[in-house]
Amino acid sequence: MNLKELVGIEVAKYVKDGMIVGLGTGSTAYFMVKELGRRVKEEGLQITGVVTSSATEKQATELGIPLKAIDDVEYVDLTIDGADEISNDFQGIKGGGAALLFEKVVATYSKDCIWIVDESKMVDKLGNFPLPVEVVPYGSHNLFRLFEEKGYHPKWRKKADGELLTTDGGHYIIDLALEVIEDPRALATELDNYVGVVEHGLFIDMISRVIVGTSEGPKEIEVPK
Amino acid sequence: MNLKELVGIEVAKYVKDGMIVGLGTGSTAYFMVKELGRRVKEEGLQITGVVTSSATEKQATELGIPLKAIDDVEYVDLTIDGADEISNDFQGIKGGGAALLFEKVVATYSKDCIWIVDESKMVDKLGNFPLPVEVVPYGSHNLFRLFEEKGYHPKWRKKADGELLTTDGGHYIIDLALEVIEDPRALATELDNYVGVVEHGLFIDMISRVIVGTSEGPKEIEVPK
Repeated sequence: MNLKELVGIEVAKYVKDGMIVGLGTGSTAYFMVKELGRRVKEEGLQITGVVTSSATEKQATELGIPLKAIDDVEYVDLTIDGADEISNDFQGIKGGGAALLFEKVVATYSKDCIWIVDESKMVDKLGNFPLPVEVVPYGSHNLFRLFEEKGYHPKWRKKADGELLTTDGGHYIIDLALEVIEDPRALATELDNYVGVVEHGLFIDMISRVIVGTSEGPKEIEVPK
Repeated sequence: MNLKELVGIEVAKYVKDGMIVGLGTGSTAYFMVKELGRRVKEEGLQITGVVTSSATEKQATELGIPLKAIDDVEYVDLTIDGADEISNDFQGIKGGGAALLFEKVVATYSKDCIWIVDESKMVDKLGNFPLPVEVVPYGSHNLFRLFEEKGYHPKWRKKADGELLTTDGGHYIIDLALEVIEDPRALATELDNYVGVVEHGLFIDMISRVIVGTSEGPKEIEVPK
Protein backbone atom coordinates (compact mmCIF):
# COMPACT_ATOMS: atom_id res chain seq x y z
CA MET A 1 0.00 0.00 0.00
CA ASN A 2 1.51 3.33 -0.99
CA LEU A 3 1.72 6.42 1.23
CA LYS A 4 -1.14 8.24 -0.49
CA GLU A 5 -3.37 5.22 0.03
CA LEU A 6 -2.43 4.97 3.72
CA VAL A 7 -3.23 8.63 4.25
CA GLY A 8 -6.49 8.36 2.32
CA ILE A 9 -7.65 5.49 4.50
CA GLU A 10 -6.42 7.14 7.73
CA VAL A 11 -8.32 10.39 7.13
CA ALA A 12 -11.55 8.58 6.30
CA LYS A 13 -11.92 7.73 10.02
CA TYR A 14 -13.00 11.34 10.63
CA VAL A 15 -16.10 10.69 8.58
CA LYS A 16 -19.06 9.62 10.72
CA ASP A 17 -22.60 8.46 10.04
CA GLY A 18 -24.95 11.22 8.95
CA MET A 19 -22.26 13.64 7.81
CA ILE A 20 -22.33 15.78 4.71
CA VAL A 21 -18.79 15.32 3.40
CA GLY A 22 -16.91 17.54 0.93
CA LEU A 23 -14.97 15.21 -1.37
CA GLY A 24 -11.73 16.69 -2.64
CA THR A 25 -9.91 16.17 -5.91
CA GLY A 26 -6.48 14.75 -6.67
CA SER A 27 -4.31 11.70 -6.24
CA THR A 28 -4.49 11.47 -2.41
CA ALA A 29 -8.17 12.47 -2.23
CA TYR A 30 -8.80 9.66 -4.70
CA PHE A 31 -7.91 7.04 -2.05
CA MET A 32 -10.02 8.81 0.58
CA VAL A 33 -13.06 8.71 -1.71
CA LYS A 34 -12.31 5.07 -2.53
CA GLU A 35 -12.20 4.20 1.20
CA LEU A 36 -15.48 6.04 1.86
CA GLY A 37 -17.03 4.12 -1.03
CA ARG A 38 -15.87 0.88 0.59
CA ARG A 39 -17.35 1.86 3.96
CA VAL A 40 -20.66 2.87 2.37
CA LYS A 41 -20.87 -0.49 0.63
CA GLU A 42 -19.40 -2.83 3.25
CA GLU A 43 -20.22 -1.09 6.53
CA GLY A 44 -23.42 0.70 5.60
CA LEU A 45 -21.91 4.13 6.32
CA GLN A 46 -24.59 6.78 5.80
CA ILE A 47 -23.12 9.94 4.28
CA THR A 48 -23.92 12.51 1.65
CA GLY A 49 -21.03 13.60 -0.54
CA VAL A 50 -20.55 17.03 -2.07
CA VAL A 51 -18.04 16.91 -4.92
CA THR A 52 -15.41 19.46 -5.91
CA SER A 53 -14.91 18.46 -9.54
CA SER A 54 -16.40 16.45 -12.36
CA ALA A 55 -13.60 13.89 -11.86
CA THR A 56 -14.56 13.27 -8.21
CA GLU A 57 -18.24 13.24 -9.15
CA LYS A 58 -17.59 10.40 -11.58
CA GLN A 59 -15.57 8.41 -9.03
CA ALA A 60 -18.08 8.89 -6.20
CA THR A 61 -21.04 8.01 -8.41
CA GLU A 62 -19.36 4.79 -9.54
CA LEU A 63 -18.68 3.89 -5.90
CA GLY A 64 -22.33 4.43 -4.97
CA ILE A 65 -21.75 7.36 -2.57
CA PRO A 66 -24.99 9.40 -2.44
CA LEU A 67 -24.29 12.94 -3.66
CA LYS A 68 -25.89 16.34 -3.33
CA ALA A 69 -25.00 19.56 -5.09
CA ILE A 70 -23.38 22.21 -2.90
CA ASP A 71 -26.38 24.42 -3.65
CA ASP A 72 -28.73 21.84 -2.17
CA VAL A 73 -27.08 21.74 1.27
CA GLU A 74 -26.87 24.57 3.79
CA TYR A 75 -23.39 23.58 4.88
CA VAL A 76 -20.87 20.75 4.71
CA ASP A 77 -19.79 19.05 7.97
CA LEU A 78 -16.29 18.10 6.89
CA THR A 79 -14.30 18.54 3.70
CA ILE A 80 -11.25 16.38 3.02
CA ASP A 81 -9.02 17.52 0.22
CA GLY A 82 -5.43 17.51 -1.00
CA ALA A 83 -3.16 20.54 -1.29
CA ASP A 84 -0.17 21.42 -3.46
CA GLU A 85 1.74 23.29 -0.77
CA ILE A 86 1.19 23.95 2.93
CA SER A 87 3.26 26.57 4.72
CA ASN A 88 4.50 26.31 8.28
CA ASP A 89 1.57 28.50 9.38
CA PHE A 90 -0.91 26.22 7.57
CA GLN A 91 -1.87 28.42 4.65
CA GLY A 92 -2.05 26.58 1.36
CA ILE A 93 -1.83 26.60 -2.39
CA LYS A 94 -4.32 24.47 -4.27
CA GLY A 95 -5.31 24.17 -7.90
CA GLY A 96 -2.67 21.96 -9.46
CA GLY A 97 -5.56 19.76 -10.55
CA ALA A 98 -7.49 22.78 -11.91
CA ALA A 99 -10.37 22.28 -9.46
CA LEU A 100 -9.55 25.20 -7.15
CA LEU A 101 -12.76 27.15 -7.69
CA PHE A 102 -15.16 24.37 -6.75
CA GLU A 103 -12.77 23.20 -3.99
CA LYS A 104 -12.76 26.70 -2.52
CA VAL A 105 -16.53 27.04 -2.73
CA VAL A 106 -17.02 23.74 -0.90
CA ALA A 107 -14.35 24.64 1.70
CA THR A 108 -16.03 28.02 2.27
CA TYR A 109 -19.30 26.39 3.29
CA SER A 110 -17.64 23.65 5.37
CA LYS A 111 -17.62 23.64 9.18
CA ASP A 112 -14.30 21.82 9.15
CA CYS A 113 -11.57 21.04 6.61
CA ILE A 114 -8.72 18.52 6.67
CA TRP A 115 -5.94 18.47 4.10
CA ILE A 116 -4.11 15.28 3.18
CA VAL A 117 -0.68 15.53 1.62
CA ASP A 118 2.67 13.80 1.35
CA GLU A 119 5.73 15.21 3.11
CA SER A 120 7.03 16.97 0.01
CA LYS A 121 4.09 19.42 0.13
CA MET A 122 5.04 20.78 3.57
CA VAL A 123 7.12 23.92 3.02
CA ASP A 124 8.46 26.84 5.00
CA LYS A 125 6.86 29.53 2.82
CA LEU A 126 4.45 29.17 -0.08
CA GLY A 127 5.35 29.98 -3.67
CA ASN A 128 7.67 27.34 -5.07
CA PHE A 129 4.55 25.67 -6.44
CA PRO A 130 3.12 27.91 -9.21
CA LEU A 131 0.04 29.73 -7.92
CA PRO A 132 -3.03 29.00 -10.07
CA VAL A 133 -5.33 31.92 -10.84
CA GLU A 134 -8.71 31.14 -12.40
CA VAL A 135 -9.72 33.87 -14.84
CA VAL A 136 -12.61 34.86 -17.08
CA PRO A 137 -11.54 34.05 -20.69
CA TYR A 138 -12.78 37.48 -21.89
CA GLY A 139 -9.84 39.85 -21.40
CA SER A 140 -7.57 37.12 -20.06
CA HIS A 141 -4.76 37.92 -22.50
CA ASN A 142 -4.71 41.50 -21.18
CA LEU A 143 -4.61 40.18 -17.63
CA PHE A 144 -1.78 37.84 -18.62
CA ARG A 145 0.21 40.86 -19.90
CA LEU A 146 -0.53 42.70 -16.65
CA PHE A 147 0.86 39.77 -14.66
CA GLU A 148 3.95 39.81 -16.89
CA GLU A 149 4.47 43.52 -16.21
CA LYS A 150 4.16 42.85 -12.48
CA GLY A 151 6.95 40.28 -12.71
CA TYR A 152 4.67 37.38 -11.73
CA HIS A 153 5.97 35.13 -14.56
CA PRO A 154 2.53 33.95 -15.74
CA LYS A 155 2.06 30.79 -17.72
CA TRP A 156 -1.13 29.49 -19.35
CA ARG A 157 -2.44 26.17 -18.10
CA LYS A 158 -2.73 23.98 -21.16
CA LYS A 159 -4.12 20.59 -22.02
CA ALA A 160 -2.00 17.78 -23.42
CA ASP A 161 -2.93 18.89 -26.94
CA GLY A 162 -1.52 22.38 -26.32
CA GLU A 163 -4.92 24.13 -26.20
CA LEU A 164 -5.79 26.31 -23.19
CA LEU A 165 -7.40 24.26 -20.44
CA THR A 166 -10.98 25.17 -19.54
CA THR A 167 -12.03 24.54 -15.93
CA ASP A 168 -15.28 22.93 -14.80
CA GLY A 169 -16.52 26.52 -14.31
CA GLY A 170 -15.71 27.49 -17.91
CA HIS A 171 -12.66 29.64 -17.11
CA TYR A 172 -8.94 29.62 -17.92
CA ILE A 173 -6.07 29.14 -15.47
CA ILE A 174 -2.92 31.28 -15.38
CA ASP A 175 -0.13 29.90 -13.18
CA LEU A 176 2.11 32.45 -11.47
CA ALA A 177 5.73 31.41 -10.82
CA LEU A 178 6.34 33.53 -7.72
CA GLU A 179 9.04 31.43 -6.00
CA VAL A 180 8.30 32.89 -2.55
CA ILE A 181 5.04 34.45 -1.33
CA GLU A 182 6.01 36.59 1.65
CA ASP A 183 2.48 37.70 2.52
CA PRO A 184 -0.17 35.26 1.24
CA ARG A 185 -3.01 37.27 2.78
CA ALA A 186 -2.02 40.48 1.01
CA LEU A 187 -1.51 38.67 -2.29
CA ALA A 188 -4.93 37.01 -1.94
CA THR A 189 -6.61 40.41 -1.58
CA GLU A 190 -4.58 41.84 -4.48
CA LEU A 191 -5.59 38.98 -6.77
CA ASP A 192 -9.25 39.13 -5.70
CA ASN A 193 -9.31 42.77 -6.78
CA TYR A 194 -8.14 42.24 -10.37
CA VAL A 195 -10.98 42.50 -12.84
CA GLY A 196 -11.33 39.12 -14.53
CA VAL A 197 -9.94 37.04 -11.65
CA VAL A 198 -12.61 34.55 -10.56
CA GLU A 199 -10.56 32.86 -7.83
CA HIS A 200 -6.99 31.97 -6.98
CA GLY A 201 -5.25 29.05 -5.35
CA LEU A 202 -4.40 30.72 -2.04
CA PHE A 203 -6.45 29.08 0.71
CA ILE A 204 -6.15 31.22 3.83
CA ASP A 205 -7.24 30.08 7.33
CA MET A 206 -9.26 27.22 5.94
CA ILE A 207 -8.20 24.07 7.81
CA SER A 208 -8.20 22.50 11.28
CA ARG A 209 -5.94 19.52 10.60
CA VAL A 210 -3.34 18.13 8.20
CA ILE A 211 -2.53 14.49 7.69
CA VAL A 212 0.91 14.03 6.19
CA GLY A 213 2.13 10.86 4.59
CA THR A 214 5.65 10.18 5.90
CA SER A 215 7.99 7.25 5.59
CA GLU A 216 6.96 6.33 9.16
CA GLY A 217 3.29 6.38 8.19
CA PRO A 218 0.53 9.01 8.39
CA LYS A 219 1.32 11.87 10.77
CA GLU A 220 -1.48 14.12 12.08
CA ILE A 221 -0.98 17.79 12.79
CA GLU A 222 -3.69 19.82 14.49
CA VAL A 223 -3.67 23.44 13.36
CA PRO A 224 -3.28 25.77 16.36
CA LYS A 225 -6.25 28.12 16.71
CA MET B 1 -35.07 63.16 -31.41
CA ASN B 2 -35.18 61.90 -27.84
CA LEU B 3 -32.70 62.73 -25.08
CA LYS B 4 -30.85 59.43 -25.26
CA GLU B 5 -30.37 59.88 -28.98
CA LEU B 6 -29.07 63.45 -28.53
CA VAL B 7 -26.56 62.27 -25.92
CA GLY B 8 -25.52 59.30 -28.05
CA ILE B 9 -24.75 61.57 -30.99
CA GLU B 10 -23.04 64.21 -28.83
CA VAL B 11 -20.62 61.76 -27.23
CA ALA B 12 -19.64 60.24 -30.57
CA LYS B 13 -17.69 63.43 -31.35
CA TYR B 14 -14.98 62.24 -28.95
CA VAL B 15 -14.26 59.37 -31.30
CA LYS B 16 -11.48 60.20 -33.77
CA ASP B 17 -9.91 58.42 -36.74
CA GLY B 18 -7.63 55.55 -35.80
CA MET B 19 -9.09 54.98 -32.35
CA ILE B 20 -9.81 51.64 -30.73
CA VAL B 21 -13.21 52.31 -29.16
CA GLY B 22 -14.92 50.37 -26.38
CA LEU B 23 -18.60 50.12 -27.28
CA GLY B 24 -20.91 50.02 -24.27
CA THR B 25 -24.23 48.30 -23.82
CA GLY B 26 -27.67 49.69 -23.09
CA SER B 27 -30.31 52.07 -24.37
CA THR B 28 -28.14 55.23 -24.53
CA ALA B 29 -25.03 53.40 -25.77
CA TYR B 30 -27.25 52.03 -28.53
CA PHE B 31 -27.54 55.50 -30.08
CA MET B 32 -23.80 56.15 -29.71
CA VAL B 33 -23.03 52.91 -31.59
CA LYS B 34 -25.64 53.82 -34.20
CA GLU B 35 -24.03 57.24 -34.75
CA LEU B 36 -20.54 55.68 -35.04
CA GLY B 37 -21.93 53.25 -37.60
CA ARG B 38 -23.31 56.21 -39.57
CA ARG B 39 -19.94 58.01 -39.47
CA VAL B 40 -18.08 54.87 -40.54
CA LYS B 41 -20.44 54.46 -43.47
CA GLU B 42 -21.03 58.10 -44.51
CA GLU B 43 -17.84 59.84 -43.40
CA GLY B 44 -15.31 57.03 -43.76
CA LEU B 45 -14.43 57.16 -40.06
CA GLN B 46 -11.67 54.62 -39.38
CA ILE B 47 -12.12 52.93 -36.00
CA THR B 48 -11.88 49.52 -34.44
CA GLY B 49 -14.63 48.64 -31.98
CA VAL B 50 -14.30 46.41 -28.92
CA VAL B 51 -17.69 45.24 -27.72
CA THR B 52 -18.94 44.73 -24.17
CA SER B 53 -21.78 42.30 -24.85
CA SER B 54 -23.23 39.97 -27.45
CA ALA B 55 -26.04 42.51 -27.98
CA THR B 56 -23.60 45.31 -28.90
CA GLU B 57 -21.58 42.90 -31.03
CA LYS B 58 -24.68 42.15 -33.08
CA GLN B 59 -25.54 45.84 -33.52
CA ALA B 60 -21.97 46.89 -34.42
CA THR B 61 -21.57 44.03 -36.89
CA GLU B 62 -24.82 44.94 -38.64
CA LEU B 63 -23.64 48.57 -38.89
CA GLY B 64 -20.34 47.52 -40.44
CA ILE B 65 -18.09 48.75 -37.61
CA PRO B 66 -14.84 46.72 -37.73
CA LEU B 67 -14.42 44.81 -34.46
CA LYS B 68 -11.60 43.21 -32.54
CA ALA B 69 -11.76 41.06 -29.43
CA ILE B 70 -10.47 42.69 -26.24
CA ASP B 71 -7.81 39.97 -26.13
CA ASP B 72 -6.51 41.03 -29.55
CA VAL B 73 -5.75 44.65 -28.58
CA GLU B 74 -3.23 45.87 -26.03
CA TYR B 75 -5.48 48.67 -24.86
CA VAL B 76 -8.61 50.62 -25.79
CA ASP B 77 -8.28 54.35 -26.48
CA LEU B 78 -11.75 55.37 -25.33
CA THR B 79 -14.73 53.47 -23.96
CA ILE B 80 -18.19 55.00 -24.05
CA ASP B 81 -20.82 53.30 -21.96
CA GLY B 82 -23.98 53.93 -20.00
CA ALA B 83 -24.38 53.66 -16.24
CA ASP B 84 -27.26 52.88 -13.91
CA GLU B 85 -26.27 55.34 -11.19
CA ILE B 86 -23.50 57.94 -10.83
CA SER B 87 -22.76 59.45 -7.43
CA ASN B 88 -21.74 63.05 -6.83
CA ASP B 89 -18.11 61.90 -6.63
CA PHE B 90 -18.43 60.08 -9.97
CA GLN B 91 -18.41 56.48 -8.80
CA GLY B 92 -20.96 54.30 -10.53
CA ILE B 93 -23.20 51.30 -10.52
CA LYS B 94 -23.47 49.33 -13.74
CA GLY B 95 -24.96 46.00 -14.68
CA GLY B 96 -28.67 46.65 -15.08
CA GLY B 97 -28.26 45.19 -18.56
CA ALA B 98 -26.34 42.16 -17.18
CA ALA B 99 -23.17 43.07 -19.12
CA LEU B 100 -21.14 44.37 -16.17
CA LEU B 101 -18.32 41.81 -16.38
CA PHE B 102 -17.39 42.46 -20.00
CA GLU B 103 -18.02 46.20 -19.53
CA LYS B 104 -15.63 46.25 -16.57
CA VAL B 105 -12.98 44.25 -18.42
CA VAL B 106 -13.08 46.68 -21.35
CA ALA B 107 -13.08 49.72 -19.03
CA THR B 108 -10.08 48.29 -17.15
CA TYR B 109 -7.97 48.22 -20.30
CA SER B 110 -9.18 51.64 -21.56
CA LYS B 111 -7.06 54.78 -21.41
CA ASP B 112 -10.20 56.87 -21.06
CA CYS B 113 -13.88 56.25 -20.26
CA ILE B 114 -16.94 58.42 -20.74
CA TRP B 115 -20.35 57.57 -19.32
CA ILE B 116 -23.55 58.72 -20.95
CA VAL B 117 -26.72 58.88 -18.87
CA ASP B 118 -29.97 60.74 -18.44
CA GLU B 119 -30.48 63.10 -15.51
CA SER B 120 -32.35 60.50 -13.42
CA LYS B 121 -29.11 58.46 -13.05
CA MET B 122 -27.23 61.26 -11.26
CA VAL B 123 -27.60 60.69 -7.52
CA ASP B 124 -26.10 61.93 -4.30
CA LYS B 125 -25.02 58.49 -3.03
CA LEU B 126 -25.12 55.14 -4.79
CA GLY B 127 -27.38 52.31 -3.74
CA ASN B 128 -30.97 53.06 -4.66
CA PHE B 129 -30.32 51.10 -7.85
CA PRO B 130 -29.89 47.41 -6.90
CA LEU B 131 -26.21 46.49 -7.07
CA PRO B 132 -25.59 43.58 -9.48
CA VAL B 133 -23.13 40.92 -8.38
CA GLU B 134 -22.01 38.38 -10.99
CA VAL B 135 -21.45 34.99 -9.39
CA VAL B 136 -20.26 31.49 -10.26
CA PRO B 137 -23.37 29.26 -10.45
CA TYR B 138 -21.65 26.56 -8.35
CA GLY B 139 -22.35 27.49 -4.73
CA SER B 140 -24.41 30.54 -5.66
CA HIS B 141 -27.37 29.50 -3.50
CA ASN B 142 -25.06 29.39 -0.48
CA LEU B 143 -23.73 32.83 -1.39
CA PHE B 144 -27.31 34.07 -1.75
CA ARG B 145 -28.05 32.88 1.80
CA LEU B 146 -24.89 34.62 3.02
CA PHE B 147 -26.05 37.89 1.45
CA GLU B 148 -29.44 37.40 3.14
CA GLU B 149 -27.76 36.95 6.52
CA LYS B 150 -25.75 40.12 5.92
CA GLY B 151 -28.98 42.05 5.34
CA TYR B 152 -28.13 42.82 1.71
CA HIS B 153 -31.61 41.82 0.49
CA PRO B 154 -30.41 39.71 -2.44
CA LYS B 155 -32.62 38.93 -5.41
CA TRP B 156 -31.91 36.59 -8.33
CA ARG B 157 -31.79 38.19 -11.76
CA LYS B 158 -34.30 36.26 -13.85
CA LYS B 159 -35.31 36.09 -17.46
CA ALA B 160 -38.86 36.82 -18.65
CA ASP B 161 -39.69 33.11 -18.36
CA GLY B 162 -38.74 33.08 -14.67
CA GLU B 163 -35.53 31.06 -15.14
CA LEU B 164 -32.26 32.42 -13.72
CA LEU B 165 -30.51 34.66 -16.22
CA THR B 166 -27.11 33.48 -17.44
CA THR B 167 -24.64 36.23 -18.43
CA ASP B 168 -22.46 36.23 -21.55
CA GLY B 169 -19.73 34.89 -19.24
CA GLY B 170 -21.87 31.94 -18.12
CA HIS B 171 -22.58 33.23 -14.61
CA TYR B 172 -25.64 34.25 -12.56
CA ILE B 173 -26.47 37.71 -11.25
CA ILE B 174 -27.65 38.47 -7.72
CA ASP B 175 -28.96 42.01 -7.22
CA LEU B 176 -28.43 43.55 -3.78
CA ALA B 177 -31.03 46.08 -2.58
CA LEU B 178 -28.77 48.19 -0.37
CA GLU B 179 -30.60 51.52 -0.52
CA VAL B 180 -27.51 53.57 0.37
CA ILE B 181 -23.87 52.59 -0.12
CA GLU B 182 -21.91 54.76 2.29
CA ASP B 183 -18.46 53.52 1.26
CA PRO B 184 -18.44 52.09 -2.30
CA ARG B 185 -14.70 51.42 -2.19
CA ALA B 186 -14.93 49.31 0.96
CA LEU B 187 -17.95 47.42 -0.35
CA ALA B 188 -16.12 46.74 -3.64
CA THR B 189 -13.23 45.13 -1.75
CA GLU B 190 -15.62 43.16 0.46
CA LEU B 191 -17.49 41.77 -2.55
CA ASP B 192 -14.27 40.96 -4.44
CA ASN B 193 -13.20 38.81 -1.52
CA TYR B 194 -16.26 36.55 -1.42
CA VAL B 195 -15.55 33.14 -2.88
CA GLY B 196 -17.80 32.74 -5.92
CA VAL B 197 -18.08 36.44 -6.77
CA VAL B 198 -16.74 37.00 -10.28
CA GLU B 199 -17.39 40.75 -10.43
CA HIS B 200 -19.79 43.36 -9.13
CA GLY B 201 -21.39 46.47 -10.52
CA LEU B 202 -19.37 49.02 -8.54
CA PHE B 203 -17.13 50.94 -10.95
CA ILE B 204 -14.62 52.94 -8.91
CA ASP B 205 -12.42 55.73 -10.34
CA MET B 206 -13.09 54.65 -13.89
CA ILE B 207 -14.19 57.72 -15.82
CA SER B 208 -12.95 61.12 -16.98
CA ARG B 209 -16.23 62.58 -18.22
CA VAL B 210 -20.01 62.25 -17.99
CA ILE B 211 -22.49 63.42 -20.57
CA VAL B 212 -25.93 63.88 -19.07
CA GLY B 213 -29.11 64.20 -21.06
CA THR B 214 -31.12 67.07 -19.58
CA SER B 215 -34.25 68.86 -20.71
CA GLU B 216 -31.95 71.65 -21.93
CA GLY B 217 -29.90 69.17 -23.98
CA PRO B 218 -26.68 67.22 -23.35
CA LYS B 219 -24.61 68.59 -20.46
CA GLU B 220 -20.93 67.66 -20.12
CA ILE B 221 -19.23 67.22 -16.79
CA GLU B 222 -15.50 66.71 -16.57
CA VAL B 223 -14.51 64.56 -13.60
CA PRO B 224 -12.04 66.43 -11.34
CA LYS B 225 -8.74 64.57 -11.05
